[in-house]
Amino acid sequence: MIPDVGARVWVVPGGRIPFPAHGAEPEFSGFDQLCILNATDEEAQVSLDVYYEDAEPVGPYRIPVGARRIRHIRLNDLIDPEAIRLDRPYGCLLRSPVPVVVQFLRQDTRLPGALGLATTLAHPT
Amino acid sequence: MIPDVGARVWVVPGGRIPFPAHGAEPEFSGFDQLCILNATDEEAQVSLDVYYEDAEPVGPYRIPVGARRIRHIRLNDLIDPEAIRLDRPYGCLLRSPVPVVVQFLRQDTRLPGALGLATTLAHPT
Amino acid sequence: MIPDVGARVWVVPGGRIPFPAHGAEPEFSGFDQLCILNATDEEAQVSLDVYYEDAEPVGPYRIPVGARRIRHIRLNDLIDPEAIRLDRPYGCLLRSPVPVVVQFLRQDTRLPGALGLATTLAHPT
Amino acid sequence: MIPDVGARVWVVPGGRIPFPAHGAEPEFSGFDQLCILNATDEEAQVSLDVYYEDAEPVGPYRIPVGARRIRHIRLNDLIDPEAIRLDRPYGCLLRSPVPVVVQFLRQDTRLPGALGLATTLAHPT
Repeated sequence: MIPDVGARVWVVPGGRIPFPAHGAEPEFSGFDQLCILNATDEEAQVSLDVYYEDAEPVGPYRIPVGARRIRHIRLNDLIDPEAIRLDRPYGCLLRSPVPVVVQFLRQDTRLPGALGLATTLAHPT
Repeated sequence: MIPDVGARVWVVPGGRIPFPAHGAEPEFSGFDQLCILNATDEEAQVSLDVYYEDAEPVGPYRIPVGARRIRHIRLNDLIDPEAIRLDRPYGCLLRSPVPVVVQFLRQDTRLPGALGLATTLAHPT
Repeated sequence: MIPDVGARVWVVPGGRIPFPAHGAEPEFSGFDQLCILNATDEEAQVSLDVYYEDAEPVGPYRIPVGARRIRHIRLNDLIDPEAIRLDRPYGCLLRSPVPVVVQFLRQDTRLPGALGLATTLAHPT
Repeated sequence: MIPDVGARVWVVPGGRIPFPAHGAEPEFSGFDQLCILNATDEEAQVSLDVYYEDAEPVGPYRIPVGARRIRHIRLNDLIDPEAIRLDRPYGCLLRSPVPVVVQFLRQDTRLPGALGLATTLAHPT
């Protein structure tokens, strides 16, 4: 029996998809990634809103995460309602009908021969 | 309807703006950055105090963050009441009249050809 | 007298053991690592379940951590009930009968001459 | 008026001082660092216990942090009651009589020409 783990709202303030990238794709693409774990027995229809410095929030983006599954999604790949422009500062807020846990990961290959890697949990509410 | 997310006080103990930097500016400058997300419908007049190892705190620095907006601010760019000296250890405490979420990000280009990247959420109170 | 510190359930959503690796082994192997601190006076029989994007969770893996001890375990080294495939996205959920603290660390040496390092606390419940 | 911020007990499970190091010292030494912010009006006599995989905890180490001050201390520099051996896995537990905030930072220069940087808040109790 798995306890309910996590929270229904998560926030990442520090988004910015690195651009340009160097190295073979897709393994050395630059990306921002959200990693979601859903330990419950129900599918989580996660919705994501993207916040900007100079425009109203855009969303919701829909990210289904199956029961007892994870999902690692590159923000670069979100296109509906609109793509997130590369190299533009943003933040995001996720909401889920069931408790999930969210981690943020950046891979930065803007500098040839170098690998910038950074991660943090999102902030739960 | 967005719930109130975040907290009104946030702390980052581990500041130190990397110096010197290598590579084109501003994209490969060395910096410490605060990333703030304000999901509320009110502008947040965030105030920041900077703590040092060997001197009284300096502040407040004023960082307005619009309603439903993010702001990514490099500590290097704060000059009023005074600039934060490069390569000097510091910490900071942020206060906001409305709940916000704060993330810390460092880009370190002191070593030519290398890219040091590190991030963490700030500590909420 | 040490207070009870930590929690009994911890989650890391963003696993993916980097592959391939470059440099001498084992110091420059690519790995995901869980770092567990048990400050209590009882051994902690930590159990770990691994979640995937496209399959049911696998577990439990057993990780004993002695009283007043730490343990740093590379996910690469877990083989019972089955090895975690390299370069495959996963997440994990740890449960302990006594409070512990869990940190996640990745070392990424996929790019020759570069060193990607990222860490975060796991999420406690 | 600054509110009491932080906690009195903090834990970092994932310590390991990188060795060897490459590059000029002390700026490119490999190190694990604890960054402590004390926003209170009282000096904090922080005490630190170090946990190992195969030995009883060692401590307390004494780290005074002045009122309204930060302190960034490299674990490499702690020598009383004994030095922390390089490249040996450890964890640590900090206790403070007044609330403080603690962040962990690693700089890894084991690979010439590369810079591994990772940070996370410690876990508060």
